[in-house]
Parts: sequence; structure tokens; C-alpha cells
Amino acid sequence: MSTLALTGGRILRPDLTVDRADVLVDQETGKIAEIGPDLADAADETMDATNSLITPGFVNGHCHVAMTLLRGYADDKPLDAWLSEDIWPAEAELTPEAIEAGAELGLLEMIRAGTTGFADMYFSMERVADAVERAGLRARLGHGVISVGKEHEAAREDAETGLAFAREYDGAAEGRIRTAFMPHSLTTVSTEIYEEYVPKARELDVPIHLHANETADEVTPIVDEHGVRPLAYARDLGLLEPQDFLAHGVHVDETEIELLAETDASVVHCPASNMKLASGMAPVQTLRDAGVTVGLGTDGAASNNDLSLLDEARDAAMVGKLAADDAAAVAADTVVELATTGSAEAIGLPAGRLEPGAPADLAVVDLTGAHLTPAHDLVSHLAYAAAASDVRHTICDGRVLMRDREVLTLDANDVRERATAEATALVERAEA
Amino acid sequence: MSTLALTGGRILRPDLTVDRADVLVDQETGKIAEIGPDLADAADETMDATNSLITPGFVNGHCHVAMTLLRGYADDKPLDAWLSEDIWPAEAELTPEAIEAGAELGLLEMIRAGTTGFADMYFSMERVADAVERAGLRARLGHGVISVGKEHEAAREDAETGLAFAREYDGAAEGRIRTAFMPHSLTTVSTEIYEEYVPKARELDVPIHLHANETADEVTPIVDEHGVRPLAYARDLGLLEPQDFLAHGVHVDETEIELLAETDASVVHCPASNMKLASGMAPVQTLRDAGVTVGLGTDGAASNNDLSLLDEARDAAMVGKLAADDAAAVAADTVVELATTGSAEAIGLPAGRLEPGAPADLAVVDLTGAHLTPAHDLVSHLAYAAAASDVRHTICDGRVLMRDREVLTLDANDVRERATAEATALVERAEA
Repeated sequence: MSTLALTGGRILRPDLTVDRADVLVDQETGKIAEIGPDLADAADETMDATNSLITPGFVNGHCHVAMTLLRGYADDKPLDAWLSEDIWPAEAELTPEAIEAGAELGLLEMIRAGTTGFADMYFSMERVADAVERAGLRARLGHGVISVGKEHEAAREDAETGLAFAREYDGAAEGRIRTAFMPHSLTTVSTEIYEEYVPKARELDVPIHLHANETADEVTPIVDEHGVRPLAYARDLGLLEPQDFLAHGVHVDETEIELLAETDASVVHCPASNMKLASGMAPVQTLRDAGVTVGLGTDGAASNNDLSLLDEARDAAMVGKLAADDAAAVAADTVVELATTGSAEAIGLPAGRLEPGAPADLAVVDLTGAHLTPAHDLVSHLAYAAAASDVRHTICDGRVLMRDREVLTLDANDVRERATAEATALVERAEA
Repeated sequence: MSTLALTGGRILRPDLTVDRADVLVDQETGKIAEIGPDLADAADETMDATNSLITPGFVNGHCHVAMTLLRGYADDKPLDAWLSEDIWPAEAELTPEAIEAGAELGLLEMIRAGTTGFADMYFSMERVADAVERAGLRARLGHGVISVGKEHEAAREDAETGLAFAREYDGAAEGRIRTAFMPHSLTTVSTEIYEEYVPKARELDVPIHLHANETADEVTPIVDEHGVRPLAYARDLGLLEPQDFLAHGVHVDETEIELLAETDASVVHCPASNMKLASGMAPVQTLRDAGVTVGLGTDGAASNNDLSLLDEARDAAMVGKLAADDAAAVAADTVVELATTGSAEAIGLPAGRLEPGAPADLAVVDLTGAHLTPAHDLVSHLAYAAAASDVRHTICDGRVLMRDREVLTLDANDVRERATAEATALVERAEA
């Protein structure tokens, strides 16, 4: 019955007000027991939060975490060429060992950035799940199902792999791991596969997560082939249930925004990736105004190139204003919500709020940096000025994952060395 | 005749290739004496650069450094409302002491971000110059001349202040401080003031720096009043000499890009500020393709909200691709150039290149972060993944300004405390 008190700091309340309070964590249940003044005496152990802001842990709503291995491997190319010329040839050489090493590197980076939960679509997901179990984060994981370029039977096998993973790993790591069925996108998975496997995923009662409306180029073929906009096609396939979440949602028209609002399916906005691949600007303010749940994701490190939700929040505010042609759009409070409650709701993980009874998933952000001085508005600082390196402590499910910048659940040097070796070997195989 | 060797690291060459080499700094002359293997024995002192990349110090081409006092004070508003409702009323309450405290805070932040040179336009510039002298950076400083809302004689007085500062401070701080004549913009300074004072600035042989074509709203009145685009009007006023540099250049048409190329005047791109104020997207790739010298600036911290050139480089790449609708535009190597040689050339400071005989203005970037692993491409890492907090050491003019994250020329705690006190008092006066 161990309890931990975070003392001397300020906390970010669910309504985004900030006040001075200690936070008492019940490490047995993994939940916040109490928030209030002077909780040190009530705790078995204390952790210093002076000159710091205790925030909900950040939630990364869309990632391919093992792609850290390809960080900086190929930049400055549009999505299609980048995938076909660089990423897919390299990914064809991935081994389960490489994926586990890349995942650990990404988890290390996320813990160091105050991220406590994420959604991930990739391959060899049992290896990613193993890494998540050790690292201590919360995750919504799924095998990325692709049918393009495959015979129908091979595509069915891939979908079966996706279903089996979703079935077997849901609730793993003492409940920290949840799963989803993850068809890659509307253009890379056949109608037949959707028709057969969406009902099977519904039987498992897991959400469905896919890329949708990321580039203009992927909208046209769907309209040509099916005679409707992509999200109308998605709805016809049964893909827009309230628990489902779509990555990107850049090229959505008014009818599709309405459809998202009606169905309650969520969008995970990935501004850095959308900018870096010149995919476009998602209409985030319009989506929010329509009542659509919007989360925030980094996408893979190869198109970002980091996994910091604080960076992503700043990017979201910046590009959201350009998209709306309005400096008041996608304001500081909005992007802090996107990175916490927005993502948590979108991917269906129980996190994002600091209140008694909520999961103790939190980050403690050091406020003493010159770049965070003066302190007129701490929500503004989170949105526009704070960086991953300002995060002092990271706690997930009541467990301390990082203390004073030292990650406790992974050996940082070992993780970096293994990932470097796997990345080097991977690129050698791909270029052989 | 003290010499300092940076040992065990890799260096970023002027052609943006990276190789292993030590750097020998002659602290007497402030210049790089030698670059090559095993220079430790040739030096009086060594500084560790293992697992690090030695880069040119970053150059911030456009700033209002004392505006750190207003960081996070007013966000999420368009330029006009933000200036008239929040920034100008607060600035009206600025004292020379407040400006010096804000400048020191900004200099502290810049040193910690590896910045060694910057251009600054503000008020009480003699106090900014004092802070620069102590902090040890290089700067191009000027008093911001404004005539809008003033009687002509008061505007002339302001211009005289600008001229006097440019005259008296050029070459201060052992030559690290250079000056410029800095009329605020084409719409906030009258034609009469330009006509009288541009020739006087030319007599002093200092560059002219102003804001230009930042928002669409500032183009229309110039076209209405003068019948030509803003940069044609600027040329007619004598403002586009090769040593002159314009901040922003967002809303420039083809004729204006051609004019910049012909006249050799430079543009300092401020992507974060342009996004945050929804001013628009500067056509950076088009400017570069036309042969225009482009630098990179943070603008003031109130519209950014940090002063890191690494953040700014990432922003420039991201929004540059959107502006060009091309993921290949404004590539990693381009933004690293913008942040180093581009800015140095634009603002006329002798920095930005690591080669023997060049000023020893450099930053040493730690490469061991999870977010900088693996190391496929270090130029990509500088552009897309490295953060201010990765900078270990900062050296300017041969002098060590920061060693192992400790700033040696300023007392960080003292600077933060003073700036906080001044910022709090300033806001109280403004809101009284």
C-alpha cells in the first residue's frame, strides 16, 4: 500500500486552471488518491515538484513507434515517393528484433517527453507490446493490415494476424495495453477485406483505427471508384463507430466533418507529419467547432522527426491558425486539450485529467528554464514554449517511469546502442 | 595567448558535410586557428566534444530581445489586435531597467540555445547593448523608429535617437556590436522621415533594417497611397541596398522577389511569428531559387514564444513545404543554412562558418539524446529533431559563454528573478 506525494508544485486542473497543490498517488491502485495542500505527511514517499507544473501525461494518438529506426533516413520527399522509394524498402527488411529495439527507443523518448499513453500501428506488435510492458506506458496497439500488392488470401492472412493480436493482447500488461483492429487506410486495404473483417473486429469489441484523408491524392481514387467521399465510403464499410479513430483527416470536406460529428468517430491530428510531407493543413478549428473529438499524434519519427507531444501541440497551434486564417484559432488551451484529454478520448485510454480517482498518469514540467520565464500564463507555456527536456518526472499508472530525467524502466544507454545497431544493419540490408 | 581545443567531436563543415575533427580556438584573436585531428596537445585548455556535433553558432536574424518580458502575456490574436490591445499598452510602460532585464533574459535563453549572434530592434538600445557586452554575444542593434501617431517633430526626434545610437555604438563591445538604422516598417514610418533619414543613415555607412510585407493588411494601404507594391516603394525610398535586411517578407509578389534579387537586399524569415499571428507563409523556396539571401529570425518571444533557432529551423522547413506545396522544398540543408550562414550574411555579422580564420562562434550539440538516435543524417537531426537543450557549449568570439549547460557570462538565477520582477511590475502598470 505504497503512496507517493508530489509536493511543492502547481497542478493543471481539468478545466485548465492552475493552482498550487500536492498530488497523492496510490501506487497500489495506480490512481490519484487526493489533490490538495500539504500531502507529504500522508505519503510513504515524496517526489519534489517545486517550481514545476504537474500536468496530465501527454497522449500520443497516432504513432508507429518502431519507426524511430528510420529517423532522418529519408527526409524532404512527398508521401508517395517517400513511402515507395525509402520507407517500404527499408521496412521490408525489418525483423522482430529490430522492431523491438526501435520501439524501446521510441518509448524511451516518449517517457523523456512526459508521454504516458499512445496508439501504435505497425508489425510484429507482440514485440512492441513486450516493450510497452517493460517500459510502463499505456498503449492502444494494433497490427497494421495491408492488402494492396497482395493476393486476396495473403491479405486475409494479414487481417487474421490483426484480429488475433487484437484478441490476444487486449488487457495485457495488467490492463495497460488495449488493442484495436488497424487496417492501414481506405486505399491500401481492399473493400473485400473491410467487408469481411470489420464485423469480426466488432465481435471482439475493439476500436478500429486507420489512416484517412491524409493527402489529396488519396481522395480522388476513392471518389472515382466508389462515387462518394472517403468518409462516406468509410461509413458504408462500418468504420465510423464512436470508439473508432482516424489518423490525419487533412482533406475532409464539409459533408465529412458533419459525418464525423454525427457518428462521434474521432480524428487524430498529426500536424508535423502533415507539414513535413506537404500533405496539407487539417481544419482543426472547424472540426472542433463541429463537435468532433480531436486528438494529437506525432505519427512515426521518420516524418516528424521526434515524438514530443509538446512539440506537436505547438505545431498544431501554429498550423491550425494558418489553416483557419485566424490567429485566434486553435489557441493555447485547445492544443493542451488535444495533447491530453483529446487524445485520451480519441484512442479510448483512461487518462488526460488530474482529479481524484483518475489514473495517476502525469508529467512534472520544470518551470525554471529561461524560455519559461516569466510565468504570465502556464497554459501558454505548455503550448508555445515548453520542450520535452523540461519534463522532470513521468508517472504512469502510479509507477514512476522517469525521476529527475532518469528513466527507471529502461536502460537508456543499452536502448540507444541496440537501436543504433539495428538501424545500421537495417539500412545496410535495404540498400544491399 | 590562450588556446582552447574542442576535442573528440564531429564538425559541420561549411558545405554541410560532417566529419570527425578537433577545433582549435585562438582566444586572443577570437578566431578558429585550426581544424583537424588530435589538436588537444596544441592547446592550453581542452573542452569535451565527444558524442557531439560542433556547429556554427546560430544567428537570429530578427528579434526584439527584451520582449521576453511579454512571453505568454497575450497569445492567439492577429497582429493588429495583438499590438494595439496588448503589446503597445504594455510597451508604453517599459522602463530602461525593464528593457535591460528582459534583454538579459533573452540573451541567457539564446546562449542556452547555441545562438551567438542576433539582430535586434527595440527601445533603450543602450541598455540592450550593455547586456550584450556582458553576455558576450555578437549583435546588430538598432533603435526602432516609429512616426505613426506622433507629430512630425517628435518623429524626427525619434529618428535622431536611432541615428545617434547607430553612430555611437557601432563597434562597441570590442567590435562585437554593430548597428543599423531601423525604421519600424513601411506603414509606421512616414515618407518624410524616410526621405530625410535614409540619406543620413547612408552617411553613417550602417545597414537599414525594417519590417516589410509581414501581413496582407499592410500591403493594401501602400498600394493605395503610393500606387506601387511595398518593395517598389521601399526601393524608391532608397531602402534596398545590399547591406539592408527586411524582416518577414511574407506577402511579396513576383515583381518584389525580382527586386530583392536585383538589389541584393536580404529577407529574414520568421516562420513561427508568421504562423502564430496567422500572417501567412513566406515563399522561402521561391526567394532562395531567385537568388535572394534569406536568414532566419525568431522575432520577439511574445509571438513565438521562444528564441531557439533550432525550433525556428524546423518551423521554416515545415511551413516552407506547405507554402511551396512540395515536400522537397526548404529541405534540411536549406534551413541549417538559413540559421547559420543565411542569417549571418543577411545581418552582416562575420559568422556562420567553421573554417580556419573564421570567428570562433560555435555551438556544441550533444548527440546522445534518444530523439537524436540513430544518426543516419546529422543535418536532418539539426533541422528536424535537435532542441535548444541539446546544446552543451556555446562559444562566441573565442570566449566560452556556456560550458556543459552552465552559462558563464550571466547569473541565470539572478537574471530570471530580475526579469520576473520587472515583467510582473510592467503588467501591473499596463493594466492599472
